[in-house]
Amino acid sequence: MAPRKLQIAAAGLGRMGHRHALNFLNRTPRAQLVAAFSPDPKEHEWAREHLEGVALYTDYDEMLKIEGLDAVVIGTATSVHAEEAIKAMQKNLHVLCEKPLSTSVDVCRQVVEEAKKRPHLKVMCGFSRRFDDSYQNAYGKVEQGQIGRPTILRSQTCDKHDPSGFFVEYAAWSGGVFVDMSVHDIDLTLWFFGKQIVPKSISAHGCIAVQPGLAQHKDVDNAVGIVEFWGGQIAYYYCSRMMAHGQEDVTEVIGTEGKLSVNLNPQNNLVQTYSGNGITREVPAHYYGRFEMAFVKEANDFAAACLDDTSLPMPIENAVKAVQIGSWLQEALVSGKQIHFDQNGKRLEKPNL
Amino acid sequence: MAPRKLQIAAAGLGRMGHRHALNFLNRTPRAQLVAAFSPDPKEHEWAREHLEGVALYTDYDEMLKIEGLDAVVIGTATSVHAEEAIKAMQKNLHVLCEKPLSTSVDVCRQVVEEAKKRPHLKVMCGFSRRFDDSYQNAYGKVEQGQIGRPTILRSQTCDKHDPSGFFVEYAAWSGGVFVDMSVHDIDLTLWFFGKQIVPKSISAHGCIAVQPGLAQHKDVDNAVGIVEFWGGQIAYYYCSRMMAHGQEDVTEVIGTEGKLSVNLNPQNNLVQTYSGNGITREVPAHYYGRFEMAFVKEANDFAAACLDDTSLPMPIENAVKAVQIGSWLQEALVSGKQIHFDQNGKRLEKPNL
Amino acid sequence: MAPRKLQIAAAGLGRMGHRHALNFLNRTPRAQLVAAFSPDPKEHEWAREHLEGVALYTDYDEMLKIEGLDAVVIGTATSVHAEEAIKAMQKNLHVLCEKPLSTSVDVCRQVVEEAKKRPHLKVMCGFSRRFDDSYQNAYGKVEQGQIGRPTILRSQTCDKHDPSGFFVEYAAWSGGVFVDMSVHDIDLTLWFFGKQIVPKSISAHGCIAVQPGLAQHKDVDNAVGIVEFWGGQIAYYYCSRMMAHGQEDVTEVIGTEGKLSVNLNPQNNLVQTYSGNGITREVPAHYYGRFEMAFVKEANDFAAACLDDTSLPMPIENAVKAVQIGSWLQEALVSGKQIHFDQNGKRLEKPNL
Amino acid sequence: MAPRKLQIAAAGLGRMGHRHALNFLNRTPRAQLVAAFSPDPKEHEWAREHLEGVALYTDYDEMLKIEGLDAVVIGTATSVHAEEAIKAMQKNLHVLCEKPLSTSVDVCRQVVEEAKKRPHLKVMCGFSRRFDDSYQNAYGKVEQGQIGRPTILRSQTCDKHDPSGFFVEYAAWSGGVFVDMSVHDIDLTLWFFGKQIVPKSISAHGCIAVQPGLAQHKDVDNAVGIVEFWGGQIAYYYCSRMMAHGQEDVTEVIGTEGKLSVNLNPQNNLVQTYSGNGITREVPAHYYGRFEMAFVKEANDFAAACLDDTSLPMPIENAVKAVQIGSWLQEALVSGKQIHFDQNGKRLEKPNL
Repeated sequence: MAPRKLQIAAAGLGRMGHRHALNFLNRTPRAQLVAAFSPDPKEHEWAREHLEGVALYTDYDEMLKIEGLDAVVIGTATSVHAEEAIKAMQKNLHVLCEKPLSTSVDVCRQVVEEAKKRPHLKVMCGFSRRFDDSYQNAYGKVEQGQIGRPTILRSQTCDKHDPSGFFVEYAAWSGGVFVDMSVHDIDLTLWFFGKQIVPKSISAHGCIAVQPGLAQHKDVDNAVGIVEFWGGQIAYYYCSRMMAHGQEDVTEVIGTEGKLSVNLNPQNNLVQTYSGNGITREVPAHYYGRFEMAFVKEANDFAAACLDDTSLPMPIENAVKAVQIGSWLQEALVSGKQIHFDQNGKRLEKPNL
Repeated sequence: MAPRKLQIAAAGLGRMGHRHALNFLNRTPRAQLVAAFSPDPKEHEWAREHLEGVALYTDYDEMLKIEGLDAVVIGTATSVHAEEAIKAMQKNLHVLCEKPLSTSVDVCRQVVEEAKKRPHLKVMCGFSRRFDDSYQNAYGKVEQGQIGRPTILRSQTCDKHDPSGFFVEYAAWSGGVFVDMSVHDIDLTLWFFGKQIVPKSISAHGCIAVQPGLAQHKDVDNAVGIVEFWGGQIAYYYCSRMMAHGQEDVTEVIGTEGKLSVNLNPQNNLVQTYSGNGITREVPAHYYGRFEMAFVKEANDFAAACLDDTSLPMPIENAVKAVQIGSWLQEALVSGKQIHFDQNGKRLEKPNL
Repeated sequence: MAPRKLQIAAAGLGRMGHRHALNFLNRTPRAQLVAAFSPDPKEHEWAREHLEGVALYTDYDEMLKIEGLDAVVIGTATSVHAEEAIKAMQKNLHVLCEKPLSTSVDVCRQVVEEAKKRPHLKVMCGFSRRFDDSYQNAYGKVEQGQIGRPTILRSQTCDKHDPSGFFVEYAAWSGGVFVDMSVHDIDLTLWFFGKQIVPKSISAHGCIAVQPGLAQHKDVDNAVGIVEFWGGQIAYYYCSRMMAHGQEDVTEVIGTEGKLSVNLNPQNNLVQTYSGNGITREVPAHYYGRFEMAFVKEANDFAAACLDDTSLPMPIENAVKAVQIGSWLQEALVSGKQIHFDQNGKRLEKPNL
Repeated sequence: MAPRKLQIAAAGLGRMGHRHALNFLNRTPRAQLVAAFSPDPKEHEWAREHLEGVALYTDYDEMLKIEGLDAVVIGTATSVHAEEAIKAMQKNLHVLCEKPLSTSVDVCRQVVEEAKKRPHLKVMCGFSRRFDDSYQNAYGKVEQGQIGRPTILRSQTCDKHDPSGFFVEYAAWSGGVFVDMSVHDIDLTLWFFGKQIVPKSISAHGCIAVQPGLAQHKDVDNAVGIVEFWGGQIAYYYCSRMMAHGQEDVTEVIGTEGKLSVNLNPQNNLVQTYSGNGITREVPAHYYGRFEMAFVKEANDFAAACLDDTSLPMPIENAVKAVQIGSWLQEALVSGKQIHFDQNGKRLEKPNL
């Protein structure tokens, strides 16, 4: 008899949504993608071609009524993440939600509240880097004590420049670069330093270099921020949408007795080309090019956790904390003012925005 | 209605066989692993745990009788590859056979003869590097003319030293290091230089450095060979079972206007560790660590070719030619004599062995 | 007839001083080291062995009276740099002064005033990275427009951890990590962004991880700072004395159309060691290990500028500006407050310290 | 009193000769370049500009008569190396001779004979790689036993393609690619394996890919050769004049317990350029770009050995052995036949050429 598979439905078939759907359909042996929801006729067209045997819905609520459904993977627009996640939990379904739960910390908290009521459900906000081989390997080395006490974390999320204007529109509702991009780096910080760390002060600076339209949304295309923690750790972040060469997401964890770097030398594959210009290595063009296998692992680990009732790598509260720190960085960026906290994490000044 | 999947059975569940079985079971969406054969009770035990829902056989011929079976993947001992492949073809089944078809060129030819009688069948000898992202990328660059005319190919297959004595036993029937290891590099040569190239002369030298027992099988643990082709190309190979650090399979293709390298800097992942010793990068311990995803792609491409009747990346004749060149290198190694050929590929001296 | 050589005297034979003396003695063909001054008998002993043919002085003023002397290279303790530089200028001598002129911005300015009175003299504060092949190559690429408009500069100066306690004592008078270490990175910023750039705001955070004694001097062993400039550029710096592996001074210059990195992969030489741990590259243990040849080039370029009356790569005013920005970063670090400036560079808040 | 300096004269001011002259003039503190000889008026013109204070000669014998002369550095055409070296020794002068002593093994031996008669003289044939930091570091690691017993050596000397036709003319008298280029790699072999090793058999293959004119001189532009030694070591070499990207001289030494690589990733400096093409590192265009500092060290070490009567890093006999092995490789290349030797190094077949 074949083993039971996780019956899962996909919400959203856009940029990230269709990747989650394909991963659960084709590359997650212990899951079966039974349905997919999208409000968009074009995405249905795509689905009829690529998601053979999967029931398609234009109504999210209808989809949740499928008999025997176990879980939902949410890859819709950020603005509906939280609502869809809450609805799914109310139907007693496990939830894997693309990050962020919301760009609003308050809305994030509602999701967490709902999840707390149903501790038997697996509710995860997908921070893909937690599932990446290299980050997992680095984390293992930290745990073994190879670098002593982790003290400084430098992490950057840098996208290839997209001159189409997409990111200007996107800035209207993305929450700003620190919430949209650096939230990954912040999550890594909570992982490597420990989720209990408390910010002491936050600074951020940014500029607009290639996308003047961002000014209308009070956003920037390059930003640098620092978070100093009580206990003596510092994390500093760089996010940019200006890379000429491609995606470049780098992390360094510096400890009292050693250091680890992840992806300091980005590469598409193991080929080097030698020409009159020198020796050249190509770079992934996009985030998914760098982290594709991490998303596959995420799908597989999520299915396993649901089926076996094992713990997920990251409590849902972390997702809120990451967004919270991202929002503070964004506030520090826009206000031009440093933010300070007491040792309990209580903010010392009134919010600037 | 779900699309039709390739019904495939796995022969052999040993070192490579079990990987093929798992790949077709879990990571080949268009295939369904319906059965597996092994003569070994221990492998059956493993299969009961890992191959849920797959019928297990102790008799290869019985397995071939399964109704609706489309294909067989053969990962048994080399000595039975050819016989099993021929039997499968005679049952009108597609065949994916782990390399080599045989260490005997004559036996290889029998498989090819059988395949020629049934041109509607997909019969492939799995040279995994043809499915590796990096090699495919490099090949694309050569086809685009980025390096001019490929002229020199350097390729090595180097295994981590295994002090257990396994490879001494293995040498009794492996065909020798050039047939067992360099056959991959020779296949790359036929790919990058073109399968029509004709050897002009062959030299080889080897030594035993860490496995004295190899002498009894006229084999070595380090060998270097050169194949010069009519038309002015040269390939040179290094194979070794002595690496302290892990698997190191490197290829350079040098053309009249540029050069490509593949895996010149082996790595396990994107982590670097900084310590008092300097900066360190880990290396895959085994062949499968380097080429796992190539095997997955091989399974998927094979399934697609069978279902869609599209061509495979490599004609089965190539597998014979690669083994033939490997055997000549081995002969040159053991005899201590260079071998020469005329422009039609006819050998000029009498065989030495 | 042999060409005229620059007659130069060395002040200070300590850590940096003795290197300057040796470079002018042995590796600057157009200069002749005629004298050396040190108040320290041990340094005289060293000099008698290594500076054959060079007159030794225990009195700086006496040394300046040497007939025919053209120039002085100052490598004494920072506290006397400015005084010695001014005295030398008053004797009509060219001056190459180890950085910084002073940890006090006011004292730096006195040196600049003195230099302005004597425009025929070459007065240079040695920022060694300006003479480094790799930085010069990178700068050339920026000038050619290869990366568009330089927008973000990341630069770090990271020393190997020295557990001897030396740096605790040193902190008493070093001016703090941003003045002592990051001043190099700030100078690079003035070079790559242009010396006319005006800071808009400055943030800094630091921690003590391995040298608790630093607290008494209000200094830290790890610090991160950001300088945002009017015009839309941002520089961010990391300095540390905690590296387990050695010296790691890295710079990235990110432009609107490309990026350059310098020393992202530090190395002692071109050797890689392959062992059971993986593949390892050694790293320079000290600043001089990374920049030795830059110091040699500095000596040669200084000699040439004096003899040929050509311009130096860096006006003396820059040295003041770099120390000024370093002091502001240090202030932001210690006060825990961001600093802001108007478009003319006028400080908006009252100093915190 | 200034210490005594080695009084040295330079013979030849061509491609390599003028570099030796400049190095002894400007970058060898313990030497004084007192004279230079060249038969070429253009080189005299160059010398008048660059070798100020150095006496110029058009007659080599006259130059040797200079009173107080200690040594000669010979950088003339290979055809006169031996004669000039012998003349210098007969005048009781130390000799640093650019490699090779001669392309004829017999002529090389005459130089060695002459040197043996005067054991107090320092007579060195300049194999520059022995003075390179990276090779010295690698050798130190081998001596410390870090890689166990060195067993396999791969080494290549690859020049940037020069389409001017220079190398076709040059082939008339260079001795062939193995004597001209691989002689460096052979010297490294004698260093890392030990100078006492005895060849057992030699194979070589080559082709002409970009310089058809080489055929008339029985030479090639790409060649691969293998030398197997009694005792179980193997060295294999690749030499080429076809590189599109620049100079690429790589060595790997593989031992029973580890491996070392030198210059596996060639680089001009520490800059990487990030653009739409990926990440690019430039490569030295020429041999001197890679080994400039090794030549400087060679000059300094030679001067020190002469002045202090200390031993040189390489006995003059080695230079003969390296040329001898190079000649055998060249013979194997041209004849298309393997060469064999008994354990005393006695050749088993009659020479083919």
